[in-house]
Amino acid sequence: MTDNPARQGRFAAGTDPVLHAANQSTHDRRLWRQDIRGSRAHARMLAGVGLISQADHAAIAKGLGQVEGEFARGEFAFHPEDEDIHMAVERRLTEIVGEPGQRLHTGRSRNDQVMTDLLLWLCDSLPELAALLRAWGLAHLKGAAEHTKTPMPALTHLQPAQVASVAHWHISHAAGAERNLRRLNDLLARLDECPLGSGAVAGCSLPLDRQAVATDLGFSRPAQSALQATGGRADVLDTLALLGIIGTDLSRLGEDLALFCSPLLGWAALPDSLTTGSSLLPHKVNPDGAEILRGQGRLLASSFSALAAVVGGLPSGYSKDLQADKEVLFTAWDKALTLLPLATAQVAALSWDKPALAAACPEALAAPFLADTLVKAGIPFRHAHDLVGQAVAKASPGALAPALAAILAASGDHAGAEAVCALPPLTPLYLLEQTTTEGGAGPAQAKAAITLLGQRLTGE
Amino acid sequence: MTDNPARQGRFAAGTDPVLHAANQSTHDRRLWRQDIRGSRAHARMLAGVGLISQADHAAIAKGLGQVEGEFARGEFAFHPEDEDIHMAVERRLTEIVGEPGQRLHTGRSRNDQVMTDLLLWLCDSLPELAALLRAWGLAHLKGAAEHTKTPMPALTHLQPAQVASVAHWHISHAAGAERNLRRLNDLLARLDECPLGSGAVAGCSLPLDRQAVATDLGFSRPAQSALQATGGRADVLDTLALLGIIGTDLSRLGEDLALFCSPLLGWAALPDSLTTGSSLLPHKVNPDGAEILRGQGRLLASSFSALAAVVGGLPSGYSKDLQADKEVLFTAWDKALTLLPLATAQVAALSWDKPALAAACPEALAAPFLADTLVKAGIPFRHAHDLVGQAVAKASPGALAPALAAILAASGDHAGAEAVCALPPLTPLYLLEQTTTEGGAGPAQAKAAITLLGQRLTGE
Amino acid sequence: MTDNPARQGRFAAGTDPVLHAANQSTHDRRLWRQDIRGSRAHARMLAGVGLISQADHAAIAKGLGQVEGEFARGEFAFHPEDEDIHMAVERRLTEIVGEPGQRLHTGRSRNDQVMTDLLLWLCDSLPELAALLRAWGLAHLKGAAEHTKTPMPALTHLQPAQVASVAHWHISHAAGAERNLRRLNDLLARLDECPLGSGAVAGCSLPLDRQAVATDLGFSRPAQSALQATGGRADVLDTLALLGIIGTDLSRLGEDLALFCSPLLGWAALPDSLTTGSSLLPHKVNPDGAEILRGQGRLLASSFSALAAVVGGLPSGYSKDLQADKEVLFTAWDKALTLLPLATAQVAALSWDKPALAAACPEALAAPFLADTLVKAGIPFRHAHDLVGQAVAKASPGALAPALAAILAASGDHAGAEAVCALPPLTPLYLLEQTTTEGGAGPAQAKAAITLLGQRLTGE
Amino acid sequence: MTDNPARQGRFAAGTDPVLHAANQSTHDRRLWRQDIRGSRAHARMLAGVGLISQADHAAIAKGLGQVEGEFARGEFAFHPEDEDIHMAVERRLTEIVGEPGQRLHTGRSRNDQVMTDLLLWLCDSLPELAALLRAWGLAHLKGAAEHTKTPMPALTHLQPAQVASVAHWHISHAAGAERNLRRLNDLLARLDECPLGSGAVAGCSLPLDRQAVATDLGFSRPAQSALQATGGRADVLDTLALLGIIGTDLSRLGEDLALFCSPLLGWAALPDSLTTGSSLLPHKVNPDGAEILRGQGRLLASSFSALAAVVGGLPSGYSKDLQADKEVLFTAWDKALTLLPLATAQVAALSWDKPALAAACPEALAAPFLADTLVKAGIPFRHAHDLVGQAVAKASPGALAPALAAILAASGDHAGAEAVCALPPLTPLYLLEQTTTEGGAGPAQAKAAITLLGQRLTGE
Repeated sequence: MTDNPARQGRFAAGTDPVLHAANQSTHDRRLWRQDIRGSRAHARMLAGVGLISQADHAAIAKGLGQVEGEFARGEFAFHPEDEDIHMAVERRLTEIVGEPGQRLHTGRSRNDQVMTDLLLWLCDSLPELAALLRAWGLAHLKGAAEHTKTPMPALTHLQPAQVASVAHWHISHAAGAERNLRRLNDLLARLDECPLGSGAVAGCSLPLDRQAVATDLGFSRPAQSALQATGGRADVLDTLALLGIIGTDLSRLGEDLALFCSPLLGWAALPDSLTTGSSLLPHKVNPDGAEILRGQGRLLASSFSALAAVVGGLPSGYSKDLQADKEVLFTAWDKALTLLPLATAQVAALSWDKPALAAACPEALAAPFLADTLVKAGIPFRHAHDLVGQAVAKASPGALAPALAAILAASGDHAGAEAVCALPPLTPLYLLEQTTTEGGAGPAQAKAAITLLGQRLTGE
Repeated sequence: MTDNPARQGRFAAGTDPVLHAANQSTHDRRLWRQDIRGSRAHARMLAGVGLISQADHAAIAKGLGQVEGEFARGEFAFHPEDEDIHMAVERRLTEIVGEPGQRLHTGRSRNDQVMTDLLLWLCDSLPELAALLRAWGLAHLKGAAEHTKTPMPALTHLQPAQVASVAHWHISHAAGAERNLRRLNDLLARLDECPLGSGAVAGCSLPLDRQAVATDLGFSRPAQSALQATGGRADVLDTLALLGIIGTDLSRLGEDLALFCSPLLGWAALPDSLTTGSSLLPHKVNPDGAEILRGQGRLLASSFSALAAVVGGLPSGYSKDLQADKEVLFTAWDKALTLLPLATAQVAALSWDKPALAAACPEALAAPFLADTLVKAGIPFRHAHDLVGQAVAKASPGALAPALAAILAASGDHAGAEAVCALPPLTPLYLLEQTTTEGGAGPAQAKAAITLLGQRLTGE
Repeated sequence: MTDNPARQGRFAAGTDPVLHAANQSTHDRRLWRQDIRGSRAHARMLAGVGLISQADHAAIAKGLGQVEGEFARGEFAFHPEDEDIHMAVERRLTEIVGEPGQRLHTGRSRNDQVMTDLLLWLCDSLPELAALLRAWGLAHLKGAAEHTKTPMPALTHLQPAQVASVAHWHISHAAGAERNLRRLNDLLARLDECPLGSGAVAGCSLPLDRQAVATDLGFSRPAQSALQATGGRADVLDTLALLGIIGTDLSRLGEDLALFCSPLLGWAALPDSLTTGSSLLPHKVNPDGAEILRGQGRLLASSFSALAAVVGGLPSGYSKDLQADKEVLFTAWDKALTLLPLATAQVAALSWDKPALAAACPEALAAPFLADTLVKAGIPFRHAHDLVGQAVAKASPGALAPALAAILAASGDHAGAEAVCALPPLTPLYLLEQTTTEGGAGPAQAKAAITLLGQRLTGE
Repeated sequence: MTDNPARQGRFAAGTDPVLHAANQSTHDRRLWRQDIRGSRAHARMLAGVGLISQADHAAIAKGLGQVEGEFARGEFAFHPEDEDIHMAVERRLTEIVGEPGQRLHTGRSRNDQVMTDLLLWLCDSLPELAALLRAWGLAHLKGAAEHTKTPMPALTHLQPAQVASVAHWHISHAAGAERNLRRLNDLLARLDECPLGSGAVAGCSLPLDRQAVATDLGFSRPAQSALQATGGRADVLDTLALLGIIGTDLSRLGEDLALFCSPLLGWAALPDSLTTGSSLLPHKVNPDGAEILRGQGRLLASSFSALAAVVGGLPSGYSKDLQADKEVLFTAWDKALTLLPLATAQVAALSWDKPALAAACPEALAAPFLADTLVKAGIPFRHAHDLVGQAVAKASPGALAPALAAILAASGDHAGAEAVCALPPLTPLYLLEQTTTEGGAGPAQAKAAITLLGQRLTGE
């Protein structure tokens, strides 16, 4: 019997180093808590149905406790022959407790074990991600609450489109965070079937109590297809899709921050502690944090299709290719867990230059309001759109409303001209306050959205 | 005023053909039903709040009915200047009803309109996808019910791993279909916020009743962020993730079918009507349908990251880049709607070669059962694993159990040797029937899974 | 014998419509020229080695000419049973010439035929792409030549970094185009092995003269592995990589244009004919063409990995999955052929606002020049970097050089202070003209680069 | 002056830990050799043009030698403040040599420095990859040379298509390797422009001699656009495309190996040292190495589009997002350098089961030869295809030729029937030897291909 419990009687030779190096999965050790928890539940069930004795169970439980302690204290030592976390834990357990350790893997395969570990890890970790999402969204709502009356141009096509507010911008990202939280919760609720007891691919002939293990580990029920439970990876893809959408959202935040903090716009600034310098150019203050959100967020979003390319086209049942699931998942996960606090820190530290924001609202942003005014005066919208467009094209600076009035008057629409002339000065704040549709940029609407999204984010 | 209602007073020149060609979105016309439905609801609301008269509303409603009829009859004629479905419908409406048509776009932008159309389209179309998923899953359950006692090797690593059954294989795909249905339903439930009334990016100054429109169109409530509602595309990415997981699952089915129907295995066959010939090789009968599932399923799964690459890094708010969402979504959608019926047809038509399946279950597949037997006799699993492995390595053909008994006897374990000698012949069917864990390959377990998954798939 | 020449004696039934629909490849018909050219060469060779008579050859050649004419005139009619372009051409040929048509496919499979068609198509089409690349690069060089002395801030991190010129920006894109042209030419040179004669996978027993066909079709030699030639798709992936890099470059041009033409910067403008309006906001003038470059360019770049996901993991030899190669290639190709002229048109039509560009060069852009000045005065660069950084942080507007001089003087470095005081006003143009490194922004350097890149682009 | 030479006079505060953690690039330290080589050449040039003294140059050169030694001995200690390899080397140099170290960065930015390092690294590393490609290809040719007369079915659509040989299969992969080598050499030849001297984005005002540095470092010439040289990443994408194609090819090899070594086929076997066991199933011998090729090869191929998604849409000039280039490149690179030796080891160790291979060549594989025979007898190919197809459908086992003869006789074609009757027994070896087209499966053709590809792979 070699040190590798998967290579026993059947094998005449050890593993070639070139294969061992490629085969060893060093990226799964973060599953140690879940692996031990799963083993504990498995052993408890084995004792419950009489497949191991209570004494063996006690020895295993105690031994697993010792292994857990070694991991928790950072003292666990991997052996060169350990293929993965599962074999390492079992190997160490057996060193500690002897023969009972050789009984732990009864009725279990690494195929069902790893999927159990992974789902447990997701169940443990997704709430951590949820907390980061929540913190990010709430940082935006805090910023929003301070700026419901700070006019800022809303952009479409990188062009000022309407007068909105800093709050309106913050709320948009908070709304994205809130939707992602909802996606996350749906995903978490779907992780309710326990793979343990599925064996390698088809179950086994031992009287396992799968419901007991499932309940013990917090799942609703055992998975109904041993083949799907051990060979499928849809839940990992699901998670990568969630992370990819979060990455996409963070990437857009990064672009916003890079733009707003560029001196070309000068709308906002990050403190020195959240910027970097240039090795060559003494004057530079670079928003590297924003760019990391933008670039790494996009990179994160490529993980879904990357793993799908590995999984797609495989025959049913476990194949070694699936080992890549943890490499892709953990890399993406770590990105998300780095990026979210980086986003939150930047959002929380952002300071806005109100005069610059106001100056960035050109007079032409009154155009939609003027068109609305004409609509209220009974002019068909398409005609109003045309007239206001002409006014924008012709008006001398500071004289958009008069130009429109003149066009109306020239066309004989004296009532319309009068309505336009009666308008107060179309300052950014005035225009902002006229925006009264629900979900729109108006201060009152922003306040309502802040309240609503805050409740949803905090689950109150 | 030109024919293009978005290019009016502000513009001095028409569109360069090179831009017009790149800009025109011909792939959105399938949204006509939703575009007209959305316009109807919008007009009804405009009349309700007094922004248009009841007479205008009546004209618009009637005109939209006529446009709808033209689409339904395939008679609608696009103009070269129509940029997209929205402008085409409004242009035609205005041709029919005159001035009231110019009032339809009051308080509305294409930015909120297109997202409303798209969400409505998803709400209409996802149930269609659900029906196809259901049919696919049920075809597997039908096949499973016929074969709960048909032994078939379950594969891991493309190697026979355990004796399972044809039913066990079918159930795995049905379980995948059922999980996808659950994902779909969660996604559908999340599509509950109506974008209409968000305007271009920030709402407007008109007294729109957004809740009324939302209710009219079947949504729970209006979107709380006009900026997120018009500029975000997370729901499209969500849908692509669902389609990508389905594609991955179909791709694996394709590989299974291609393998099983290869004469190299000879386990199953498709009828001539579901195979193709070779232009050169007279004897070939090719499972092209299986390969299309495999290849196109993988291709489909690349859509998520492809669109995420477009959306990521964009500034908040609508940018033209987002136009690509429909190109990617509809291409992926059409693939899914082609592949699912192709999968169902093949699954339903599959015939199995029972003798070939039995012959493909080598004696060594008794190994896990023999190890279980030793475990029941009190031997620690790891030791049992080693002993059975030795027996597999040494046994002459047809003599696995005797070889194991001899090894046991030689080691002095006469009780163990006797337990092995007492076993009946380890035929595939015998081994299958000993597999008694829930979710495992045993006939009774298969029946239970068929019942349970059938209930879930049909929602009973 | 059915209408489908691949489904003859061996088949008892026709094709199920669900398979026929999924199987039919409607996207390959653009290969008609190459398919006919390949068939002509094949027939000529068959006659040359005596496998068909000269009379049959004459009939085939004449018939193919008629088919070619039908395609050229847009009169070719596909039959519902035609699986692809190859079967359609052979079917039509046989309708026209009768029995000789049945001899054309002698010693040929669709597997070698389609790869021959595809490589011929690439050999025909890549020069077309090269011409578009060249035109794009030359449009930049033309713009550059007009603006070697037009100062413009060069950006890093979306922050003004150094004074450069409009020419410097143009030259960067031209340099990218030139490198892509070089990639293209390398790729074209690698397409030198003719697949025809490889048969389905392993050649055949007929005395084909493969070198003759290869030479006839313009290849250097026949492919040395029939299996690789028919089952490999690396040349398609190669092409997608080239298109993906071009797409990435165009995407960055799109971002540049969208930024520069935003009123937030106001550096450049596109004519009305290359912008679009808003359906709602009368004042908007949107750079949709720039955004289409940006978004579609990114989408194009996802094609490489999308097809690699389909091809990877397939067994050696042709599988139907590979049919997706043309779908992905042609979609990507058409994007490139739409985007390049759109880029060229915008580059050629771009007008620059010189005052705005000058105003966008803040005084701090003198910092690197000031540091260079201190370096020339003997101060270690890192120290110079620090001193200039302090000056930037402290200087009152318009007084960067004096601030630096004061810091130097205060530290006792009177020589350094004097050197700084002796500098002329640090206008953008002055700073630009001091930039004298090869490949840098200086006017003379720009002229040299324009000349050199122009020669490389035009191959002179 | 802080410890971070990029954060000096301009900054009032240190870096926030959350940004520092995300910003630090720990994955670039493998560039140390190239970074030091580039710095040496830069310092030599600075002294050559008089920007630093010969004494400073000597100190720098000596100091860099010491830093190099520390790296080579694994003794180099990174500081927590070191942002990247460039800052770490300069920091350490300055610790060692004092003030001259502060002069090293004269006229240089990290933007041109990192691209110089990266291109030098590629120039150093691509030949290493070439050697692995060559070894892989030659392992196939060695296997091929041993098996030119070992019949093996060539597969299309996972169906036996023609009789080929083990050599034919090996040659296909060798041909792929040879083509990849050619791609690699083209890429290497394109890496001929030196970025150093491009500065941050636009060059500088110092009298750098860029050609001297370029020549010193082995490049043909300096890059002509400082902006493209510092901000572009096309050469990295180019490399990822090459790696992606190699990954795709390795992935297909993995699938071949997994199939051939499956007991379901039983065509080939890997030694125990290149297989793994199962933790649960004592009898399993799994080809994990083949599956790692298949899965990781596909994963590798997703890198191109992943990085393109990051780069696409960025404004011209360096942005921090580009930092991801090294993360993606090095991850992909390490995969390739793990997978190629793993492939070579498996190819070299593969043993073939000749009887199983022969048994896998069903009688129907004579069909194409029979059709060729009829063609030689003057029957049009399409008619021959039909007749042979009928014979395959009707023939009783072992009687394909007689069945065909009977069909011919029944149709009155007695000459054809006689020609068929005159054929010797259609054994796999006989059929193999009749395959005489160049590049085909015939033994003589295989020998020719082995010779030719061997010459190309070894460059003789």
